[in-house]
Amino acid sequence: MTYRAPLDDILFALRLAAGDGAIKPGGIYADLAEGVAEQTLTEAAKFAEGSLLPLDKIGDSVGAAYANGAVTTPPGWREAYAQWKEGGWNAIAAAQDYGGPDLPALLNAGCTEIWNAANMAFALCPLLGHGAIEAIEAHASEELKEAYLHKIVSGEWTATMNLTEPGAGSDLGLMRMRAERAADGSYRLFGQKIFITYGEHDLAPNILHLALARLPDAPAGTRGISLFLAPKFLPDETGAFTRRNDLRCGGIEHKLGIHGSPTCTMIYGDEGGAVAYLVGEENKGLACMFTMMNNARLAVGLQGVALAERATQAALAYARERKQGRAPGAGETSAIVEHPDVARMLLTMASFTAAARAICFETAAAIDRAKRDGDGAAQERAGLLTPVAKAFSSDIANEATSLAVQVFGGMGYIEETGVAQLLRDARICAIYEGTNGIQAIDLVTRKLRATDGAALKREMEDMRAIAREADSSQAALGDAVEALALASDYLIRAEPAAALAGATPYLRLFALARGATLLMKGARRASAEGDAKAARYAALARFFIDNVAVAAPGLARSVCEGAGSVNEAQAALGE
Amino acid sequence: MTYRAPLDDILFALRLAAGDGAIKPGGIYADLAEGVAEQTLTEAAKFAEGSLLPLDKIGDSVGAAYANGAVTTPPGWREAYAQWKEGGWNAIAAAQDYGGPDLPALLNAGCTEIWNAANMAFALCPLLGHGAIEAIEAHASEELKEAYLHKIVSGEWTATMNLTEPGAGSDLGLMRMRAERAADGSYRLFGQKIFITYGEHDLAPNILHLALARLPDAPAGTRGISLFLAPKFLPDETGAFTRRNDLRCGGIEHKLGIHGSPTCTMIYGDEGGAVAYLVGEENKGLACMFTMMNNARLAVGLQGVALAERATQAALAYARERKQGRAPGAGETSAIVEHPDVARMLLTMASFTAAARAICFETAAAIDRAKRDGDGAAQERAGLLTPVAKAFSSDIANEATSLAVQVFGGMGYIEETGVAQLLRDARICAIYEGTNGIQAIDLVTRKLRATDGAALKREMEDMRAIAREADSSQAALGDAVEALALASDYLIRAEPAAALAGATPYLRLFALARGATLLMKGARRASAEGDAKAARYAALARFFIDNVAVAAPGLARSVCEGAGSVNEAQAALGE
Repeated sequence: MTYRAPLDDILFALRLAAGDGAIKPGGIYADLAEGVAEQTLTEAAKFAEGSLLPLDKIGDSVGAAYANGAVTTPPGWREAYAQWKEGGWNAIAAAQDYGGPDLPALLNAGCTEIWNAANMAFALCPLLGHGAIEAIEAHASEELKEAYLHKIVSGEWTATMNLTEPGAGSDLGLMRMRAERAADGSYRLFGQKIFITYGEHDLAPNILHLALARLPDAPAGTRGISLFLAPKFLPDETGAFTRRNDLRCGGIEHKLGIHGSPTCTMIYGDEGGAVAYLVGEENKGLACMFTMMNNARLAVGLQGVALAERATQAALAYARERKQGRAPGAGETSAIVEHPDVARMLLTMASFTAAARAICFETAAAIDRAKRDGDGAAQERAGLLTPVAKAFSSDIANEATSLAVQVFGGMGYIEETGVAQLLRDARICAIYEGTNGIQAIDLVTRKLRATDGAALKREMEDMRAIAREADSSQAALGDAVEALALASDYLIRAEPAAALAGATPYLRLFALARGATLLMKGARRASAEGDAKAARYAALARFFIDNVAVAAPGLARSVCEGAGSVNEAQAALGE
Repeated sequence: MTYRAPLDDILFALRLAAGDGAIKPGGIYADLAEGVAEQTLTEAAKFAEGSLLPLDKIGDSVGAAYANGAVTTPPGWREAYAQWKEGGWNAIAAAQDYGGPDLPALLNAGCTEIWNAANMAFALCPLLGHGAIEAIEAHASEELKEAYLHKIVSGEWTATMNLTEPGAGSDLGLMRMRAERAADGSYRLFGQKIFITYGEHDLAPNILHLALARLPDAPAGTRGISLFLAPKFLPDETGAFTRRNDLRCGGIEHKLGIHGSPTCTMIYGDEGGAVAYLVGEENKGLACMFTMMNNARLAVGLQGVALAERATQAALAYARERKQGRAPGAGETSAIVEHPDVARMLLTMASFTAAARAICFETAAAIDRAKRDGDGAAQERAGLLTPVAKAFSSDIANEATSLAVQVFGGMGYIEETGVAQLLRDARICAIYEGTNGIQAIDLVTRKLRATDGAALKREMEDMRAIAREADSSQAALGDAVEALALASDYLIRAEPAAALAGATPYLRLFALARGATLLMKGARRASAEGDAKAARYAALARFFIDNVAVAAPGLARSVCEGAGSVNEAQAALGE
């Protein structure tokens, strides 16, 4: 199945999110001036299309294999990983102190989309490594950084996140994995983790596990969780990493999708305890882990954008080729792209993708501004937008990949054509790194109310300014923004049960209003700049406003008037 | 994974659709009086839960297997089919003249839901057989009926529908399979069909293929298609069916779901031509096939209801058991069913299922009234509701099974728990027997306009009468009905390109208004009758109105104002 990285769309969205005058000497994106973004994305596209894409299907059909504690990745993946590492792609946003090129989160977002579109199961390994890099950089001792950070920045070794246990998924406070203090200042880990992505594999000679565990004297709940680093191989007396640590993979899951990515059960401390080092302070592990989680949440949003883009390209290519029936006014059999109902599906997919990309890139730009300019408002904005970027993008990935199957018809239901794989792969994005329900709850219970709603207020002002410029034929844009304002006012004052009941429709509403205004802003800019795709951007924005964002007032009604029926009917469910 | 046939819900929906006073001596459902419906459904549930459900997972994991032209069904399926046949379940709505019990379509609908919830891949074989039975009964010669009908009614033999070819899916006019007249009045078939469900298998000793083909002198397009019956085995000189016909299975597809159901490529006439008999008149095959298709479309809707019901039950059972986090006001860790956001997912699934069931059963009741009373208005109503029943039910099956995966979280993504299978199995329903896009186009271009919109007018009057009785807290019900009225008025007058662009949101809008009014009607009836589940029905109806049907005005806006942007943006897609 074909995929070409949509370089012009990505670059356009990147420039829009970067803001006026940012990509030039003196701007916060000075390092992207002189064509650096274009060159980096072009090279990334070459590698993704040439080396990762051809391995995507074999990853699905062969999958990762487990035997006797070892995991074998699909044929060709080891070689591709070696190229990946040598190409310097592993961690382009990592700090220069540890061998990274320190490129902005925004450019990293563009690359992340491209890697995941070509081969999500492969790209997932470094994706989670990025979170580990950030957590170690922010919280680990200098000694740990010196020993480990260079190697996971370069990709020589990989890193994992160990959070989930059978009894502790969304609720990490229920975690039971045990840590004990050792005499030498290190720790020993005992227990089991599940759903550990790339917990074991054959791509790299060592794997660093970041794991949450509980000390014997720790307080109950989330305030008693500490973060540890436990390498698969420990240094021997010569300093070479040859000593096998007391941790192992007990098996991998048989999953709906991302078959190439091994999802491992990890067993710690069967033989006296896995040696581990504290990251950050004792009992402050959750905060450290959230450094990883926020990074990973935006990255999962980008996976959603990636699969939606790839599904759109696949469906469009098929729809241009497949001939059935006569479109209105056609004299002979038409390509199905000419049928208005098929066009509606394709436009839904394309406009979903563009809106989700715009939201993710805005989030990445806010992260850059917070980091590079120490801008507190940008930090708050990144917090507000991250759950929307993660949940909306993964929701629309489910919808877009399912629509791609629908456009292919019967051919979509057979595995041969590859679109069914996209649907299966995409389905995890709404679940991992905090389910989309958790994202919605984070949005309404924390992010909306943070600093007295200042971030929301700024966001609303920006959306209203864009909507005010809309002409009278685009009333639906203003209606969407005002529906969001109404629902936001309601939620800020609502009782917890009512706010929680409205969380999911509210997040969707937020994304529709924010997505529609960003598409409109982009369309205006493209027109003003005489962009070659200006007509296309305008058409997509109009389609999104008239056919997708029109759902906004209904969602606001569900938020403001629907909670009562949720709470009331809940009683009927408990029976 | 657990499934209990929801007998009370099915019986309640059945009585509601049957209408007042119909299930008693003298009523059109006199044959259901004295507990016949209850007994039949209870026995069906026993068989489904005891014999079909346990084979569902092995059907998925082992699948049907192909070798050298033969297809082996999964372990245990042959024995289950033998029991199915002996139990008399194969065709309970078939005419008594041919050995059927002639029970109403409405009761058959209840049973169809139950079979498909327990094991959709298995139930698909007789489901398609029902269509073949109707087509042969309505169109075949007495001779053909005598020779074949008893055996496919009893289930001794099975029957298939052969429509699709590589170049002819939604557009049957492009069909190329060739038929030639033979000297003895029979015909010979040559060519290839694809996607033939149970085209070959080991459940029965003979398979009757109903196939569409084109005679040498036939007009082009759909007016040149004839329907033929081609048995796998032909009678020898003793009358025993031992002579292998010149048709064979060339392979089966590797599909996203329904793995137990073999999807066959069928090759006709490699060795001189497959012997076939004309059904109906030459070149009138499409009309005959539509007899099968309409039946099958409602049945596919019921498959959607079935999988949505099963997914709801699975998610609810898991949500009652799984403990994570504290719900509002809870002192300790709560079952996740108590979290409002999870409750919203479960209520969405449950109310979707109830609404889709109500629409499907109304359709079945209209079929019964048309057949038993010769009621022309009921015939028109069945025509109007069939595309809605098929498309809405299969759409919500996709949504409900995906929500079930979401409620299960990470456990939903691994195949072990079985909910991922429901998602994969359900995905075909929106595609086969006419894609949901084809259903929507059928609705807006034919069914809405039929007999000057008389059927729509009667449907609107019924919905308005129900909405008028709503109290002021239920304004969303009236708004949904009026949104439908608005969109209907627009579509009846719209240009073809605009009507086609609005077809899919219109079908959804129709289903939301019709579903909401039926749920409200049912809730009132349950309350008036003091039904034990009256509070639950009221809560589900209210939830559906306040949280699902609130999308209606937005959909109407998309229908009435969105077509321009579809048609305009289509140009951008063609590039």
